[in-house]
Amino acid sequence: MSKQLNIGVIGAGRIGRLHTENLLKHPQVNVKAIADLQIDHARAWGNGLGIPLLTQDAEQIISDPGIDAVFICTSTNTHIDMIERSAKAGKHIFCEKPISFDVRGTRLALQAASDSGVKFQLGFNRRFDPNFRRVREIVASGQIGDPHLIKITSRDPSPPPHDYIKVSGGLFMDMAIHDFDMARFLSGSEVDEVYVQGAVLVDPVIGELGDVDTAVIMLRFRNGGIGVIDNSRQAAYGYDQRVEVFGSLGQVNVQNDFPNSAEISTAGGVFRDKPKHFFLERYEAAYRLEIESFINAILNNEDVPVSGEDGYEAELLADAARKSWLEKRPVSLSEYSMSTS
Amino acid sequence: MSKQLNIGVIGAGRIGRLHTENLLKHPQVNVKAIADLQIDHARAWGNGLGIPLLTQDAEQIISDPGIDAVFICTSTNTHIDMIERSAKAGKHIFCEKPISFDVRGTRLALQAASDSGVKFQLGFNRRFDPNFRRVREIVASGQIGDPHLIKITSRDPSPPPHDYIKVSGGLFMDMAIHDFDMARFLSGSEVDEVYVQGAVLVDPVIGELGDVDTAVIMLRFRNGGIGVIDNSRQAAYGYDQRVEVFGSLGQVNVQNDFPNSAEISTAGGVFRDKPKHFFLERYEAAYRLEIESFINAILNNEDVPVSGEDGYEAELLADAARKSWLEKRPVSLSEYSMSTS
Amino acid sequence: MSKQLNIGVIGAGRIGRLHTENLLKHPQVNVKAIADLQIDHARAWGNGLGIPLLTQDAEQIISDPGIDAVFICTSTNTHIDMIERSAKAGKHIFCEKPISFDVRGTRLALQAASDSGVKFQLGFNRRFDPNFRRVREIVASGQIGDPHLIKITSRDPSPPPHDYIKVSGGLFMDMAIHDFDMARFLSGSEVDEVYVQGAVLVDPVIGELGDVDTAVIMLRFRNGGIGVIDNSRQAAYGYDQRVEVFGSLGQVNVQNDFPNSAEISTAGGVFRDKPKHFFLERYEAAYRLEIESFINAILNNEDVPVSGEDGYEAELLADAARKSWLEKRPVSLSEYSMSTS
Amino acid sequence: MSKQLNIGVIGAGRIGRLHTENLLKHPQVNVKAIADLQIDHARAWGNGLGIPLLTQDAEQIISDPGIDAVFICTSTNTHIDMIERSAKAGKHIFCEKPISFDVRGTRLALQAASDSGVKFQLGFNRRFDPNFRRVREIVASGQIGDPHLIKITSRDPSPPPHDYIKVSGGLFMDMAIHDFDMARFLSGSEVDEVYVQGAVLVDPVIGELGDVDTAVIMLRFRNGGIGVIDNSRQAAYGYDQRVEVFGSLGQVNVQNDFPNSAEISTAGGVFRDKPKHFFLERYEAAYRLEIESFINAILNNEDVPVSGEDGYEAELLADAARKSWLEKRPVSLSEYSMSTS
Repeated sequence: MSKQLNIGVIGAGRIGRLHTENLLKHPQVNVKAIADLQIDHARAWGNGLGIPLLTQDAEQIISDPGIDAVFICTSTNTHIDMIERSAKAGKHIFCEKPISFDVRGTRLALQAASDSGVKFQLGFNRRFDPNFRRVREIVASGQIGDPHLIKITSRDPSPPPHDYIKVSGGLFMDMAIHDFDMARFLSGSEVDEVYVQGAVLVDPVIGELGDVDTAVIMLRFRNGGIGVIDNSRQAAYGYDQRVEVFGSLGQVNVQNDFPNSAEISTAGGVFRDKPKHFFLERYEAAYRLEIESFINAILNNEDVPVSGEDGYEAELLADAARKSWLEKRPVSLSEYSMSTS
Repeated sequence: MSKQLNIGVIGAGRIGRLHTENLLKHPQVNVKAIADLQIDHARAWGNGLGIPLLTQDAEQIISDPGIDAVFICTSTNTHIDMIERSAKAGKHIFCEKPISFDVRGTRLALQAASDSGVKFQLGFNRRFDPNFRRVREIVASGQIGDPHLIKITSRDPSPPPHDYIKVSGGLFMDMAIHDFDMARFLSGSEVDEVYVQGAVLVDPVIGELGDVDTAVIMLRFRNGGIGVIDNSRQAAYGYDQRVEVFGSLGQVNVQNDFPNSAEISTAGGVFRDKPKHFFLERYEAAYRLEIESFINAILNNEDVPVSGEDGYEAELLADAARKSWLEKRPVSLSEYSMSTS
Repeated sequence: MSKQLNIGVIGAGRIGRLHTENLLKHPQVNVKAIADLQIDHARAWGNGLGIPLLTQDAEQIISDPGIDAVFICTSTNTHIDMIERSAKAGKHIFCEKPISFDVRGTRLALQAASDSGVKFQLGFNRRFDPNFRRVREIVASGQIGDPHLIKITSRDPSPPPHDYIKVSGGLFMDMAIHDFDMARFLSGSEVDEVYVQGAVLVDPVIGELGDVDTAVIMLRFRNGGIGVIDNSRQAAYGYDQRVEVFGSLGQVNVQNDFPNSAEISTAGGVFRDKPKHFFLERYEAAYRLEIESFINAILNNEDVPVSGEDGYEAELLADAARKSWLEKRPVSLSEYSMSTS
Repeated sequence: MSKQLNIGVIGAGRIGRLHTENLLKHPQVNVKAIADLQIDHARAWGNGLGIPLLTQDAEQIISDPGIDAVFICTSTNTHIDMIERSAKAGKHIFCEKPISFDVRGTRLALQAASDSGVKFQLGFNRRFDPNFRRVREIVASGQIGDPHLIKITSRDPSPPPHDYIKVSGGLFMDMAIHDFDMARFLSGSEVDEVYVQGAVLVDPVIGELGDVDTAVIMLRFRNGGIGVIDNSRQAAYGYDQRVEVFGSLGQVNVQNDFPNSAEISTAGGVFRDKPKHFFLERYEAAYRLEIESFINAILNNEDVPVSGEDGYEAELLADAARKSWLEKRPVSLSEYSMSTS
């Protein structure tokens, strides 16, 4: 393989476009093709970017022998099919989260990728955020000793459209899945048990759609530690993405990022601007860095930093969380291993 | 009643001495007597303070018609007896937490106080901390809207002696009880359900004594909100006492207090001193303010700011928390109303 | 001398009352007498405090052989006389700043105190503030290396009455004098040269009275370092009292103290309360600690922590600052040694 | 002019390369040529970037009719010549600071640019830093009232090589010039008077070269306000770039940017990483934004945000600062208008 990578992007929605724009700035990448069913929207955006092929048909990408790797950014229900076809075609795969809503299907797709020997990286971009990455380094270094408790705050500025909620898999699968991955990433441990308190406090329609908009999730890690995630679809004060880890020797926490550090003091008090608005602003660097890691892994034939197994484990936790909420009881992950055995 | 209050202190351990020293500085208080079974220790400390009577016999205080109010600072197992005798003698009562380990006994003691018409204040000093007090004001003002989630971090710098743990009622009754009160205080709502993950991560002997040293407690409030408390007997970095409240319109949090604000920047990074060491330092002002409130309530015949009912409700929550931990399931508070009906 | 100290307070204005109330709480102090020319005001405040003598005549304190020490809290123009008489009478002296407006008179008064062998402490209370004290410790420890630059921000929330400004000695003598002392305290070095930019930006009447309300003062220290003080009579956002020291190995700074640490995040931004309002709130602990140091110095026959020389040097700097402002040029402190030689 | 801009970069040292790399990522820019006397170094870096021409001869850029704009990133002593030639050739000009060391030459070069009607932008990149930009917005909005005092902290992590100091024009012209511009930018006012205390505290060789490594600069603004700049060639704790503005209604300040927000609490205290290392990290966004502004100004025929006059005024202040240091007196800017009249 040359030191230049040819890439096709499948799905040109918000996240597909974001990845494309980052790929275009990467010195070792050629974006050769973009596929999207809504080809008119894709053209309105993509014409002028100098990408050779804009197509409605993903197969034109998958079957192109000149393409080394694909970015799967389509809706979740298509992921398994896209992964299996791309893997068979020998393309390296970068796939957005979640892999699927069906843990059995996810297993099969990952098997296909594994069998074909391609690289497979999942889009848990937050692992590349400089704050969370530093927390992981500090935990891994032993500076705060054995991790006893991990607290993750993850709250969106405002709920997605109702139409999205209908197909997203719900708060646990669509939103908390990032936090499940973060819990595993920071602790370096698997989870044994999940207990959830969910509530509909933001928008009653979300409840009518069978979902919650507010949740607190308690995790029991296999290494004995405890985890707590709190999620909300609506934080009036902006995107709230923080973690704290408490260990036997100390504690580490990270705060939100702010657009600037200006602090104004007047007779009315002390003021500053809200945190960065949403994931595009907060995770701008993380999106760039996850792509660089994927590209480096291919070019240097190294392991990808976020594997398909990471995606699978997070899906299991999302499923267990939903079950805990529905059945109002702690759910052990051993219930899954039993049912799959 | 004159504008000067005559007070007797029953129990001259650490907390009894603290209250005495604060009472001695109060311009409208005369400390007339102190009773402690360990009279030699009490004398070694109390001689020279100008207190007229140091005695081994609490009855000398309770039966003294010249004494207006008592501070009950003895070990918890004696509280019910002391409350009932003091109430019968018409003394106003300031009692340390918890009232007792037996919620039925607590009810009877509170009834006795209520029947005799004396003031009864419980020692939930943290309500008087300037930080937590400000959070309550902000929540009550509606600035952050309806409270959706309350997070309380409450971690001690190091565990108490094993002998204390044996008689303290355990982490939930002795330590988390402050946090149960804080949850009720900040939310302005009662709790419906409790779920606990407990662990022994600090000292195995604590586990052998039938207690935990680490716990995360999830609360479901009657108003629909959720609460999370995290406790540890050992925070290597010092006393950690913080809260966050997330509401429909915003969020408020308070941080630890520090002995100074000095921040040192060197080639190695940025450094500051640890938070204030423990409750004597952190809650210095709160201990003064709770006493002032009690004295004002008596002198002006107003309601006390922390009632016996507040103590009773917190005890119920501590009991439910222990049950949840033992039975590994969410415990509804309705189980208590059923059993007491 | 017994382990109990008998003290008389001369001058019962705002600062005299503050000291008296702190002295009354000190276990080793008896406040025996208070003198104030405005005896009606003094009685309205002091009756009921249990002080044996309230008088119009300071001589009743100075000539009382039962009194060990005096607090001189009268207006500045009486200080020299009070110091000389108290020293002759063998009283230890705590004197408010500045000693006088006349550096020659100050020298003579200090000589009288020195000749009589009494302790003499000056009321530079800020040296006892936990923040500034910690900065001094850090500088003295060598952690930040040789001090290169000291920046002092010192701004009052609102100007004093015009009548006070007329007799106060002006911004440099009345307000900046604390900062001159802080500069010497933190650097551990004397000052060689002063340059001032003054302005009337707050209240034109202050300018008509021959004073400034805004000033930036540059200092050249004898050890080669530089100092900058900024003063304002009116900081709309409250009392602003901060310092920064930059050294060869690092930097240390302290921030204002706040009444609480509550931080509110809403759609409008992030908010917190203003800093503590003014010197009574900010320096509450410092006022207590300076008195304790004075009393300990007497009881244990140790050096006082703030000497008359410290007061004299700060007065010289205030005088030089005013001269620099009037003459629009850097003023060398050597001009003073020449004139006094 | 098309919506695509052809640009040549003259000088491929550190700053020339930085601009080039940013220009290469800009969608509306073609970098057509790079000129550098050290052509071997330039080729070692620039080959593979896809730039059509790498040359030793700036004239090949200046005389190329296909080039719309030039970036002048050569050493300062060549700027006047490059500006005059580029202006005559009708190229828009982006020039690094300072324009020259000779204020008269600067005037003539600016006149040439003005006569030819090209855009001329100076590289005061800090105006585009999100922190400083926000401060300017807040001051301009009137939120803090009339500005009374501006404090600028500007300290480098370590001194440049001695060879650079020999030709840089010295601390005032090379380093403080950014701060002079910041003072004008934030205040919206010109400066009337400059007074400097300079010192050699970091490296005696810098003193032998006739320069200082530490300086505090006091400014008197025409609008009555005061400014203070502190500079050091060596801040052991990293790049220190902060400002504070005090106004009649309040204060605003910005802090340094940090690589992450992780805060570690252990038994030893509270720690965080140092600020971002140096200008490449701290001003990464600012460098991008200043280029975008320049390009937009050309494409839309709008005013550039930092003019040649801004560069000229900052040079005057640097010259006055050096004079103040040498002559140990406040220097009025009116001395310049007199001499040039």
